[in-house]
Amino acid sequence: MLQEGERLDDLHRDGLKIIQNPNGFCFGMDAVLLSAFAQVHKGQRVLDLCSGNGIVPILLSAKTVGEHFTGLEIQQKAADMAMRSVELNGISQKVRIVCGDLRDASTFPSDGFDIVTCNPPYMAINDGKISPDQALAIARHEIECVLDDVAEAASRWLVPRGTFYMVHRPQRLADIILAFDRHGLAPKILRFVQSKVGKPPNLVLIKATKGGGPQLKIDAPLIIYGDDGEYTAEVREMYYG
Amino acid sequence: MLQEGERLDDLHRDGLKIIQNPNGFCFGMDAVLLSAFAQVHKGQRVLDLCSGNGIVPILLSAKTVGEHFTGLEIQQKAADMAMRSVELNGISQKVRIVCGDLRDASTFPSDGFDIVTCNPPYMAINDGKISPDQALAIARHEIECVLDDVAEAASRWLVPRGTFYMVHRPQRLADIILAFDRHGLAPKILRFVQSKVGKPPNLVLIKATKGGGPQLKIDAPLIIYGDDGEYTAEVREMYYG
Repeated sequence: MLQEGERLDDLHRDGLKIIQNPNGFCFGMDAVLLSAFAQVHKGQRVLDLCSGNGIVPILLSAKTVGEHFTGLEIQQKAADMAMRSVELNGISQKVRIVCGDLRDASTFPSDGFDIVTCNPPYMAINDGKISPDQALAIARHEIECVLDDVAEAASRWLVPRGTFYMVHRPQRLADIILAFDRHGLAPKILRFVQSKVGKPPNLVLIKATKGGGPQLKIDAPLIIYGDDGEYTAEVREMYYG
Repeated sequence: MLQEGERLDDLHRDGLKIIQNPNGFCFGMDAVLLSAFAQVHKGQRVLDLCSGNGIVPILLSAKTVGEHFTGLEIQQKAADMAMRSVELNGISQKVRIVCGDLRDASTFPSDGFDIVTCNPPYMAINDGKISPDQALAIARHEIECVLDDVAEAASRWLVPRGTFYMVHRPQRLADIILAFDRHGLAPKILRFVQSKVGKPPNLVLIKATKGGGPQLKIDAPLIIYGDDGEYTAEVREMYYG
């Protein structure tokens, strides 16, 4: 199952493993936080955009009672790793990986998913150095999709009143709210993530609904490390709980 | 100077005092946080919208090196208290109170202020119980002005690249960003205020510029009370520093 440069990592959950490439596609804490933030209920169908090596649908299939999980990834190499991880874990009844472009509306029927999740490329094209490695560049910078594409795709494929969960950089918050507004996504919960108490946030978790009123709730910040430099209990629970 | 029901409070700064009415217009911590958050440089002219009893221009006149401070307040009774406080403190060379409506563009010339500040009514009309006391109702609910009016007024009266500082409720953040966008105000800094570590924020301080790019910075949260239940050093400094 493994190709050159790849390794198999343990997800500490139901014996699940995932194929990663330390020089290419590896999931980050962002994906773990997003998977813990997303609430998926019984019978719900989930679509993960910008799915990379499939970490979010694979984790959600074990952590939640959702009915089915689809990961959409534009890069063939990452999608192929994700497909092999699904096969390896024997979860192909519940998890499906699709290699495709979220800008292509014909990829899925409209209004087909109860939940959409996304851990998109964070950086605008004019922001920061673009990796010379094309695969990493596409994963990190808005080369193949921009925020507006992500919001449009989420809105298009969600059922009315469906829920979109996204993780992103706090610096993009105004862009995010404006893009969501353009596509009828109403922010419902924001949760900022700080490495420690007293630090500025470096991530933000966002829950939005397709349609719905302007009521927004801001949760207490999620703190990653305690004063002892170890994961806080909340983060340990997300990884190993 | 004092009318029935009013009292004189010490501002712990340059011997300044302010007239308040415990049953009507009293400033809150929000105004103190806003005054500490706003950066006013030498020679700058400041306009405070929704100025109430004038706490923000009075504090800013003592805390900053700004050249002149104007407070605009729609309610005659509050504006009158503010005018008497200015007189009482002998600062009428630096601080002027105007009773008027921020929706009336003719109140001031366009592009006349380097800095605009505002501690507006927080609650939308359909949100929470409206006070039977009309003065309090206008101070708390969007009866005489809504967010969009505030953003429009700030933008209209700021010089190009001028700075707008506002304090508001975090629940309104999406509304705020959308209203700012409609009036060409780009959010630059957000700082959430939490009563304690581990609590959700109950206020947000926002710095925006008239024009300017999308770069947004989120500061570390401002924490009001320490574990000992006393003000944190940062808040003590804002009140007494």
